[in-house]
Order: sequence, then C-alpha cells, then structure tokens
Amino acid sequence: MNLLWPGDERAGDLFSDAAVLAAMVRVEEAWLDALVAGGIAPAGARAALAGLVGPADVTQLAEGAEGGGNPVIGLLRLLRSRLGEGEPATWLHRGLTSQDTVDTALVLCLRDCLDRVTDDVAAQARALARLADDHRATAMAGRTLTQHAVPITFGLKAAGWLDGLLLADAQLRRCRESLPSYAGGAAGTLSAVVELARVTPDPQATALAVVRHLTQALGLDGGANPWHPNRGALTQTADALVGLADVWGRIAGDVALLARPEIGELAEPAVAGRGGSSTMPHKSNPVLSVLLVRHARWAPAEAATLHVAAGSYTDERPVGSWHAEWDPLRLLARRSVVAASQAAELLAGLRVDVERMRVGADEESLRAEQQTMAGLIGQPPAPDYLGLSDTLVDAALERAAHAQKELS
Amino acid sequence: MNLLWPGDERAGDLFSDAAVLAAMVRVEEAWLDALVAGGIAPAGARAALAGLVGPADVTQLAEGAEGGGNPVIGLLRLLRSRLGEGEPATWLHRGLTSQDTVDTALVLCLRDCLDRVTDDVAAQARALARLADDHRATAMAGRTLTQHAVPITFGLKAAGWLDGLLLADAQLRRCRESLPSYAGGAAGTLSAVVELARVTPDPQATALAVVRHLTQALGLDGGANPWHPNRGALTQTADALVGLADVWGRIAGDVALLARPEIGELAEPAVAGRGGSSTMPHKSNPVLSVLLVRHARWAPAEAATLHVAAGSYTDERPVGSWHAEWDPLRLLARRSVVAASQAAELLAGLRVDVERMRVGADEESLRAEQQTMAGLIGQPPAPDYLGLSDTLVDAALERAAHAQKELS
Amino acid sequence: MNLLWPGDERAGDLFSDAAVLAAMVRVEEAWLDALVAGGIAPAGARAALAGLVGPADVTQLAEGAEGGGNPVIGLLRLLRSRLGEGEPATWLHRGLTSQDTVDTALVLCLRDCLDRVTDDVAAQARALARLADDHRATAMAGRTLTQHAVPITFGLKAAGWLDGLLLADAQLRRCRESLPSYAGGAAGTLSAVVELARVTPDPQATALAVVRHLTQALGLDGGANPWHPNRGALTQTADALVGLADVWGRIAGDVALLARPEIGELAEPAVAGRGGSSTMPHKSNPVLSVLLVRHARWAPAEAATLHVAAGSYTDERPVGSWHAEWDPLRLLARRSVVAASQAAELLAGLRVDVERMRVGADEESLRAEQQTMAGLIGQPPAPDYLGLSDTLVDAALERAAHAQKELS
Amino acid sequence: MNLLWPGDERAGDLFSDAAVLAAMVRVEEAWLDALVAGGIAPAGARAALAGLVGPADVTQLAEGAEGGGNPVIGLLRLLRSRLGEGEPATWLHRGLTSQDTVDTALVLCLRDCLDRVTDDVAAQARALARLADDHRATAMAGRTLTQHAVPITFGLKAAGWLDGLLLADAQLRRCRESLPSYAGGAAGTLSAVVELARVTPDPQATALAVVRHLTQALGLDGGANPWHPNRGALTQTADALVGLADVWGRIAGDVALLARPEIGELAEPAVAGRGGSSTMPHKSNPVLSVLLVRHARWAPAEAATLHVAAGSYTDERPVGSWHAEWDPLRLLARRSVVAASQAAELLAGLRVDVERMRVGADEESLRAEQQTMAGLIGQPPAPDYLGLSDTLVDAALERAAHAQKELS
Repeated sequence: MNLLWPGDERAGDLFSDAAVLAAMVRVEEAWLDALVAGGIAPAGARAALAGLVGPADVTQLAEGAEGGGNPVIGLLRLLRSRLGEGEPATWLHRGLTSQDTVDTALVLCLRDCLDRVTDDVAAQARALARLADDHRATAMAGRTLTQHAVPITFGLKAAGWLDGLLLADAQLRRCRESLPSYAGGAAGTLSAVVELARVTPDPQATALAVVRHLTQALGLDGGANPWHPNRGALTQTADALVGLADVWGRIAGDVALLARPEIGELAEPAVAGRGGSSTMPHKSNPVLSVLLVRHARWAPAEAATLHVAAGSYTDERPVGSWHAEWDPLRLLARRSVVAASQAAELLAGLRVDVERMRVGADEESLRAEQQTMAGLIGQPPAPDYLGLSDTLVDAALERAAHAQKELS
Repeated sequence: MNLLWPGDERAGDLFSDAAVLAAMVRVEEAWLDALVAGGIAPAGARAALAGLVGPADVTQLAEGAEGGGNPVIGLLRLLRSRLGEGEPATWLHRGLTSQDTVDTALVLCLRDCLDRVTDDVAAQARALARLADDHRATAMAGRTLTQHAVPITFGLKAAGWLDGLLLADAQLRRCRESLPSYAGGAAGTLSAVVELARVTPDPQATALAVVRHLTQALGLDGGANPWHPNRGALTQTADALVGLADVWGRIAGDVALLARPEIGELAEPAVAGRGGSSTMPHKSNPVLSVLLVRHARWAPAEAATLHVAAGSYTDERPVGSWHAEWDPLRLLARRSVVAASQAAELLAGLRVDVERMRVGADEESLRAEQQTMAGLIGQPPAPDYLGLSDTLVDAALERAAHAQKELS
Repeated sequence: MNLLWPGDERAGDLFSDAAVLAAMVRVEEAWLDALVAGGIAPAGARAALAGLVGPADVTQLAEGAEGGGNPVIGLLRLLRSRLGEGEPATWLHRGLTSQDTVDTALVLCLRDCLDRVTDDVAAQARALARLADDHRATAMAGRTLTQHAVPITFGLKAAGWLDGLLLADAQLRRCRESLPSYAGGAAGTLSAVVELARVTPDPQATALAVVRHLTQALGLDGGANPWHPNRGALTQTADALVGLADVWGRIAGDVALLARPEIGELAEPAVAGRGGSSTMPHKSNPVLSVLLVRHARWAPAEAATLHVAAGSYTDERPVGSWHAEWDPLRLLARRSVVAASQAAELLAGLRVDVERMRVGADEESLRAEQQTMAGLIGQPPAPDYLGLSDTLVDAALERAAHAQKELS
Repeated sequence: MNLLWPGDERAGDLFSDAAVLAAMVRVEEAWLDALVAGGIAPAGARAALAGLVGPADVTQLAEGAEGGGNPVIGLLRLLRSRLGEGEPATWLHRGLTSQDTVDTALVLCLRDCLDRVTDDVAAQARALARLADDHRATAMAGRTLTQHAVPITFGLKAAGWLDGLLLADAQLRRCRESLPSYAGGAAGTLSAVVELARVTPDPQATALAVVRHLTQALGLDGGANPWHPNRGALTQTADALVGLADVWGRIAGDVALLARPEIGELAEPAVAGRGGSSTMPHKSNPVLSVLLVRHARWAPAEAATLHVAAGSYTDERPVGSWHAEWDPLRLLARRSVVAASQAAELLAGLRVDVERMRVGADEESLRAEQQTMAGLIGQPPAPDYLGLSDTLVDAALERAAHAQKELS
C-alpha cells in the first residue's frame, strides 16, 4: 500500500518487505537442504525456517540492515537465535555470502511479479484481439502530429497496440525463463563450499551438485556462472518491463486523448466511484489512463538507474552499485503488476463510440491524399480509403494466436 | 523502514504515508480556518481535524485512492463521516481542488525533510572545516586518472569537499525559502472561492486574503501564482537534492577508495557491529560510504523523472505527469535525509592515517612535474611542492564561515 | 548543423567543435598573458594564438584526442609547432593541466549559449506578457485530466506560462553569473605556478594573481577554489537549462493540443514552407511545438548524465566521469539555444481563436461547480465565473516587469 | 569526428549525417523499384538516385529540415529538381510518408553499426577466452566492497567478464535479426499504395508485394506490421547496446582500479603516444579504460530518453516523441562502435602482472574464511582455496564456444 501510488494495492504482497524476507528465508532453507543433499551437512541440519521469522520481524531486520549494509547478517542472527543450538544453526548459510541470499531472493520476488504481469498481458492481448476484430470496419480519422491525416480503422489501431504488446511480452518471457540463482560464495569461487565438501569424495563435484540442487529447488536457471557482478539478467528484465510500460503509456495516451470531450471517440469503462472529482460532480476523469501514463513517465528512469549501477560494478562485489539496485528493481516489478492489472481492466471495458469515429473519418480533408493518388492514375477515387487496414488486422491477430499457442 | 534501503530508519516518519496524511489534514484544517477568517464560512466551521484521522486510516485511504486518482476524495469522505453533520463538514475543502491539497501537503513534507538535511549538512560542513584545518600540513599523493600526479594535502582535499558542499547547500537553501503553497481551485482561477466570497463586500479581495491566510498559516511563500502546472519549485528542489547527492557520492567514493587495504589512507569511523561480513570476520566494509555511493547512483534518475513529468504537463492539470511526481519526490527527500545523516556521521568520525599519506606523498614520481618547472627557471626544486594548498584551505574555511554567518 | 536535429542551425557556431577549439586557444592565450603579467614569464612570452589554429585543424585534433583522452595535448603540440621555438612555445600552458583548459573552454562556450538563451527568454517573456494582457477577457475552457473543468481566461494561461518561465529564467541567470574558471594545475594545488613564481618575491601571491588575471580576462567568477572535482556550477546550469526545457515543453504541449482540429483554439504562426506534409498538402503541422516537445523529452536525461558523472568523481580528477560530461553539456547548451529561439518565434506569432475559446467556455458543464457554490451561499450564480483570473494576470505581469527591471 | 568525444573517429562515417542521407536515398530508390516491380509505376520510374545527392547536400538539407520537422520534404524537392521531369520524379516517394523514409534509414544505419559492434564483441570474446584460459592458475585477491575477501583467479575474473559479454551480445544479436522496415504510408494503412495499385488486378495483394519487395531489398525483417508507433524494435536495440556498455564499464572499471600504482596487477596495452599527460611525463593514464567508463556513465540516459519518447507516443505519429529519438539513437549506435573497438583493443593487449597478483592472493587475511570452514569440518585447511574457479572457467569457455558455433 502506498498512499502516493494509487492502485498499489493491486500488487498485494508481491515483493513487499515481508515477501523479500520470506524469499531470503526460502533461499537459506533450500541451501541447508542442498548442503545435506550434497553430503556436506548432516541430515539433522535440515530445518523448516519459514515459520521462524515473518512479517513481524521486518522492522527489526530493516533497522539492523545498515550495520552490514544489507539485511542478511541480521537475519542470520535472528534465525540462529530462534533455531537454538544444533545442526541447523551450525550449518545455516555456510558457503553462501550475503549477496547470494539477497540476489536470489530478489530474483524469486521478481519472478512472482513477472508471472502476474504476463497473466495480465495475456488478458490484454485477448481484449485487444477482440477490439481489433470487432472494429475492422470502424473507420476513424488517422491523426499524425495532431492533425487529421487519412482514415484508419479502430481495428487497425487496436491491432497496432496489440503488435506492440506482443513484442514487449516476448522479451519479458525470454527474461522470465532465464532468471538465474546467485550462489558464488564470498567472491564467486564457491571456495567455502568446496572446502566443506572435503568430507565427500569429490569436493568439486559435490559443490557443483549443491549449487545445482539449490537452483533446481527454486526453479531457476542454472546455466549461468554464479558471478555476482553480471547484472545482465536483471537489467534485461528491467528493460523488458519498461518496454511494457512504453506500450501501456502509448495505449493510455491514445485513450486519454480520444476521450477528450472534443473528440469523444473512446471512453474508459464506467465504474461506480471512479473518475470523480473532489469538486466537479459532472467530471469523469480517465483515471486508469492517467495512472498508466504515470507509470510510463516514471519507469524509464528506474531501469536507467539499474544500468548506471551495473556499469559501475567493480571488484567481485562493488561499493554502492549493488545496493542501489534493490529498491528500484522492486518498485519497477511491483508497479508493473499494478499497471498490467490496470491496463487489462482498461482494455477489457474500453467503450468505443463508433458513430463519432465515423464522423471524423468522413471529413473531406482526410481524402486529400487519395485525390492526389487517384489523379496520378487517372481514376476517380475508390469508395473507401482504408488501404490494408483489414489485412494488417489479420496479420496481428495471427501473430497473437501464434504467441498464445507457443505458451500453451 | 525499508528492508531494501538500509539506513532508511534514519528518516523516521518524515514523508511517510502517515506524514503525508497528516499534512493533507493540516492543509484542510488551515483552509477551513482561512475560510472563516475571510468571512466566507461561519465561525462554527472551524474544526480540529488532526485528531480525526491518523496512521490507522492510511491503508483504507491508500486503497481508495485509485478511484479518484489521488487520496483526497477518500480523505474528504472520511473526514465528513467523522465530523458528522454540521458546519465543518459543510465547509470542508470548499474552493480547493484535490491538487491543492496534495501539492501543498507534499511541500510541507518536503520542507520537513529539507530542514533535517540542512541541519546535517551544517554538521558536515563543521566536520569538513575541522578536517581541512587539522590537515593543512598532511601531505598525500594527488591522484588523477588513477595515477599519482603531484602531492596535495588532505586538508586541501577536505576543503574541496567542503566547497562542493557549500555550493550545493546554498542552492538547497534558496529552494527551501521559496517553497510555495498551491491553492488555485479547480483550474487555478480560485473561482469557487470568489463565488463563495460573494457573501463578503469584496469577493476578490476576500479570496486573495483567504489564500494569503493559508499560505501564512503554513509558513510558505505566497509570492507565486497558485498555478498547478508550474513545477519549477519542486524540480529545482529535487535538483538541489541531487546536487547534494553528487557531493556525498564524491566524498564517499574517495573514502571508499582511500580505505582500500592497498592504500589505507582513510578509514570509516569504527563502530561496533558495522561493516562486518556474513562470512569473513576480518573484513571491515566501509558501509557508510557504500550506502552514500548507493544514494549518488540512484538519485539523478529520480530528478530526471520529475523533469520528464514537468515537461509533459498539459492543460490546467495533466494526465499522469502530476501523479508520477509524488513518490519520486518523496523518496528523494526522505533518502536525502538518510544520506545526510550518514554523511554527517562518516565525516565526524573519519579516521586519517597521516603516516600512510606521507609515504605516498614522498614518492619520487610525484616530483617529476616540479623538476620540469624548476629546470625552467634554472633553480633547484623548492623543498616542498604543495603550491597554494594552504591558501586554498583558508579560502574554503572563509567561505564556510561566511555561509554559516548568513544563517545565524 | 545536424540532419537529425531539425532547427540546429539556429545555434549557428555556438559550442561547435570550432568554437571549443577557439575557446581553448583563448584560455591558453589568456594564461600566457597572466604568466607575463605576474612576472613569471618574460614579456616576449605573450603571443596572439588565435590566428594560429582554426576550424581546419579540428579534424586532426579530434582524431588525436584519444591518445591523451582529451584534445589538449594535441593542441599544445600543434601550437608549439606553429609558434616555432621561442618564449611563447616555452611558456605555453606552463602551470596548467589539460582539465584547466578544457573545463574553462567549456565554460566559455556555455556562457555564449546562455547569453543567447536569456535573450530569447526575454523575448518570450515579452510575448507572453502581451498575450496575458491582451487576453484577460478571453474566456476559455479550463481543462483538467483532459476533461472540461471550469472556465479560465487565455490571459491567465499565458500568465501561468510566464510565471513558469520567470522562475526558470531566474535560476539560469544565477548560474550565468557564477560560472567559474578552472585553473588548478595537475591536482588543484597550483603547485607548478608557485614553483615557477619563485622568480618573483612572493611566489604564492604571484600565483594567486596569475589565476585572478586569467579569471578576470575571461570575465568569469573567481570566487571559487580551482578544484576540478566540484562540478556543481556545471550541473546547476544544466539543471537550469532543463528547467527551461520543461517550461517550453509545457507551453508547446498546450499549443499542440489546442491546435488540434477538434479544438482549434490556438494555431502556430503561419510561415510559408513550414508545417507541410510530404504527402498531404492540406496538413499544417505544429512544427515549432513538435520540436519544442522533442527538446523537453530529450533534455532531462542529459542533465541526469551530468549528475551521474558528478556523483562518481573520485581522486583529484576521475576516470571517465569527467569525459562523459563534455558532449552532453555541449548538446544541452546548444539545443537550448535552438529551443529558446523556436519558443520565442512560436510565442511571438501565436494565433488565438477567441471565438472558439468562447464557445468552449460557454458550455453548461463548466458551470457545475459554480452551481454548487452558489447553492451553498443561497444565491443565484454570478454572471461570470472567472474568479481571480484578472488579478493573477496582474500579479504575473508585475513579476515580469520586476524581473526585467532587475536586469536593466 | 567529435572534438569532445575522443575516439569518435573509430566509427568513421557510420551513422553520420552523410550516411543517414545515403540511407534515405537508398530507401527511396528501393521504393521506386518496388513500385515498378509491383506493376504500379512504369519501368521508366526506376532511377539510380544514389549519385544524385551526397555529402555536399547535407548542410542544405539539414537547414531545411525544420520546415517540415524532418529532412524528407527537402530531400524529395532536391531529388526531383535533379531528376528533372519524368517518371522517376513523378513516382518518387509515392505511397510513403516521411516517417517511413526516416525510420527505415535509421534502421539501416543502425544495422551497420550493430554489425561493427558484434564483430568487435567477437574479438573481445576471443581475447577474454584466452585470458581466462591462460590465467586459470593465476591467483589474485578477490575483493568485495573494496576489501580483500578470499582468493580468486584472474582466469575466473576474465571468465566472469566473458559471461557478461556473452549475455549482452546474445541480446544484441536477437535485435539485429529482427530490425524492421517501416512502410505504412501516412497513417499506417498503406492506403495510398492500395489506391495507386488499382491499376493492377489485386490492389491489396500488390500493395503487400510492394512492401515485401522493399523489405527484402533492404534485407530487413518483414514480419512486423508497418506501424509507426511501435518503437519496441528500436528501444530493445538501444537497451541491448546499453547492456554492452554496462559490461565494458565494468571491465574498464576493474582495469582502471587494478592499474592503480598501489595495486598494479593490470596495465593497459602500451602504445606510443597514449596515456601521456600534458604536464607529467611519468604518467601513464589508462586511457582506454577512461573512455570506456565514460561510455558506461553516458549510455543509460540515452536509452531512457528513447523509452520516455516511446511511452509518450500518441496518435498514428506523435508530437516530438518521434523526433526526440533520432539523435540519441544515432549517438548510442555510433559510440557503441567506438567503445566496442576500444574494448577489443584493451582486452587484446591487456597486461597482467602475475607476480603482484600472487602477492595479494597470499595475504593471510584471505584465508580467514577457509580457517572457519576447515574448523567446521575438523580438518586442516586445504593447500589452495580457489574453489570452483577452474571449473567455472571451463563453463564460461564452453558457453563462448557454443555462442561462436551458433554464429558460424
């Protein structure tokens, strides 16, 4: 909940402090498991950590995070105190470093957000496909540089939105599939695990198996080296989320524009209690579009911060560049969930005033280009002037169907 | 408290959701007062609103904010329900628009943060002046493009930090002094107030007096027109905060660098429980510097978002550009408080290894330039080669003293 | 000239490569003068360098700049080769470092741009004052969140634009007045100058006098320490330019919106050959607004880059952060000249359709708020509902007059 | 050539104004061809346009670009005047709109840059693979948060750089393969082409064939709808270039750090005339690293601008958001070529001081973690403590070999 980010509740508890804490605990628990599975720690080192700490501990851990620069040291202290003496406390976090825990937890929280985003994007794609199909024949004015140009169809406009969405979505899905775990130990060599694994016949093989165990347990991609300074997986995901923000910003910008009283070709879904004014009862503000444009104005700079940070990593783990990533990544992911949900709702209920569109499309000035063309071929203008609108709608629908099939 | 922004608790409740809510209530209460003082509303319309809503209401108001795109409509509904029928409920918010309430509340919260920042900056300036003065004679290697150049003094380095700080601080103070109130009504004309003020002899004069009353009650600058789309006061303040972030980033970058074991000329204050590692007991991480560099990496993009928003305002109040400002402004202000506090602590306890500095300054290669210069004038090199270091320290200390005098 | 930045020619040769080269030469020449004036170099060391290198040398110097990371080493080599042996060649650049030359030259080029910008801003302010005054009585629809709210006057809208402009302009003028010179030598201590000045009775006083001579000769502010890592003067200027970009972006956004055929309340100045389409002869695109919006979308990120760089300065001169500033600063300054000129032209010739504005203002729905207010005081609505529009116009005009008086 | 971006000449004429002009002409020529091939225009409409305009025309076209907001109208006028009367002049540009020409030309120039970048990235990958392989056994201190942590190998560090590079490169190659052409006509419907194609039996099929012809002639991806507002292909490419900038920034940051005299573990390739100082002959500045860090500091904001623009597209073609993209895209592409070339040179000649690395790795403190681990398993510490370094190098080399095989 964020009083200054209306709609934030749509993201529920995703990537909240409590969710991050739970994810860190999940990483530590899976690591304990992996140490046991690998034969490094005794079976008694396994422990259900999830119940030991929870939302009520967030404040204390947050306040203690400054000492180590991250919340892991405090978390370990808390876990150990609640575990009491014994094998779980002894083996907890052995071989990991703080960044392993934080980064992998960030990835888990990020993934939860991506899953929600892609669900809502699929719903948006369905709504857009329907709009494109329903409005193949709905002529409207095409507008360029604010002026009327030539007629288009609203179906084509919706198909264009759809095309943009599909491209951005494909990129996000690629990122989703290759989210890595981070488990490299103090400096990326996993040296502590190998040292501990000397109790097994092949320490190196054991260490590799431990990492693999963790990665598989968490459902992440184990194909990458566990090297902290490679932030590409995170920046690419952030970029993909901004790519979606761009698409939503464009759609919402178009809706807000076409919902102006002087144009009146589109209207947001009518929902009781939405869009009212604190002083003007007649007003119906396009609130969903407003909040989506907000997201589009805001998102690009967050990804830029992630890049600035990624490009100034030094050493095996850097000064500040790592720490600067966490909250922007969280906000970008969480707010993408909010925006995805708002966009899905906007498109599902979008109201189209076919008649006002037609009036705009019929303006004489929109035929000026056609007159020139017809003159060139020495023929009277054709009755319509919608070009390939219909065919292009088909092409977009086909791409959408293809994308959907790939997913199922 | 933010688990992913270690040190956040240093900002306490400043610009929290609860603080924003309290500020909005304060604006509404001051406005009721102003309506009564202006003779528009009856004396019975005055009401102590502050006790009516509080932190416990934040969640409900945040969740309701999406409907109107901002939390004001929900707040008014809540206030009216708790006021019950009567004059306060009748006159509440009359003549204002949501943006008046939100913007003025943001300004109030911002001001509280600026006051804390400037206090801590003053402490930083004192610490730097002391370092500059104490280390006038502490020679060290001047480094350019990573390589040793010519000797400097650590006093001069501290004086340079101080100079940067003073310049940034002066800009922030200018912004602090001209924070405006926003009270323009639905579209900036204050038409509703004038209409209501027809119960007074001179409605226009009354309306002006009402606005003046509000502005004075809140201690803000009434010199500007109450026109919502002028965001300059906010963007300039944000820029000034980023200017400070730059200075802290530079200082922290220097400290982190000079604290490397291979250099070892500086060290952060030694504080129990800080800078430890989750796996390497010997490590002493320069945590304050780490977190300050984090702030410097992060801050510029937030101000850029405010500018992107400000430059895309249209109409009397825009789609999305306004809404995109709130949270970045809040975070920038709040985290500046955090960083200012961290920087003050870092500088107050900074540990200087004079001996290691001297060893670096004595390296032969640092005299190469001097050899050339001495050759040019046909003299043996002078015994020292610190140039105007001392004089420049004096100049910086004088500027600092001058700045401090202006404040008192 | 830049094929991909239409209008670039408005900035002529300002801050071009040739201008930067000339400015660097001017710095070196003024420094030679200063060395002579200070009694360090013999009178014969003075030389008119300006004629020795010119635009034809830019390519060679640019290509050679990579070797030293900046163009100064190549420039010195070229100057020396053209000076031939003798005192000017011997004393050239003595005591300076590359960054002194580059930074001071950047400042000189920047100042030339600022002067052009402020001239055009003054013209904009005059045009806006005239529009505000002429259209005090021109009622139009006030629009918020795309919807009609209450009536305003176009005079008030222009006055609001004017207010924004004045605030941004004041900030830029402050920056203009405190542009520093940079002359610190290799690491900011001016040690080489002091060493050379041993041929004078008081080497330190001489060194100070030499720097002062340079600063005064170039008309810059000598109040700051010559310390390279303090980038505040540059970032504050960049921020101020972005502040102006925001204002222009808002004005242009409003113009482009109100010039839509469905609204038609404003139109850009009619200029033969402008605004045409490559295929639609009837179109009249609002080209100046288009290019101003372009500037507003583009500018914020450039200033952010300057801040990212400034916040990552380390040592006495840093790795890359300095080099990353030059071209963004140049582009921001140069393109501000372009935009300032375009905005001046747009505002000078802006066409206002008073009748269409009136029609919008007369819509019933714009009186809804007034009905509520009138009901509250039990009176019939007043004949007009323009609130303080006229008074606020007066206030803006007064501020403008005051600002203008301060300048003359 | 850019005096303020040292190294710019490495990009030669790529994406210069002249190159953009040539690309626009190429698009127009291919379109004439396509109109003829489709049976719309007569065979005589074909014309070799490439010789008609050239670099000497750039200034005139740039100066004329403001009138239409882009350079196409001026280009068409120029082409027509040089073609004289006849079929080529008649059919030139028929069915296209300015944005088709500009966007497709931008894509062609972009592709040329990408090809150079990917070539240099391949060279970097080879150099890194060699470094990783050669230095599998070169132990050095692993550093985290500036402090010594545990030993790593330089081979592993190089392998980590390589991993980052491969990830970024894969993303760029994906973008390279799906660069679209833009040919939609005035509002994306291709209506003018369909109208003209009425001279053929199936106008719609003809129009599609014409577009396909253009796309194939230019070697672009025809799979996307020709809809101007979908900027995803451009923003994804820009993001991918920033992803590479991040990797280079990290490598260069590490090199510059490890090249500090106090550390001295790495050195840039020794090249005569590079890295010198204007006043200190002994200095050897890490110039390539400096310029790469510059690129990394600068690049993120440019991509952010593209996103800001893309997210504020409205209508079929927008106000300003389109125009704001051109030059940032050009600079990002061109400077990526520069940086790619510099990074290839840096890595090919990187000098490694194995002995100094070893000394750092041998420090007692780097074994602290191992002591703890060994204690835990009740064994004496193993002789080495390099963990999986070697195995992880193998994995990276395998990924590199796999990536390379995919390309050939």
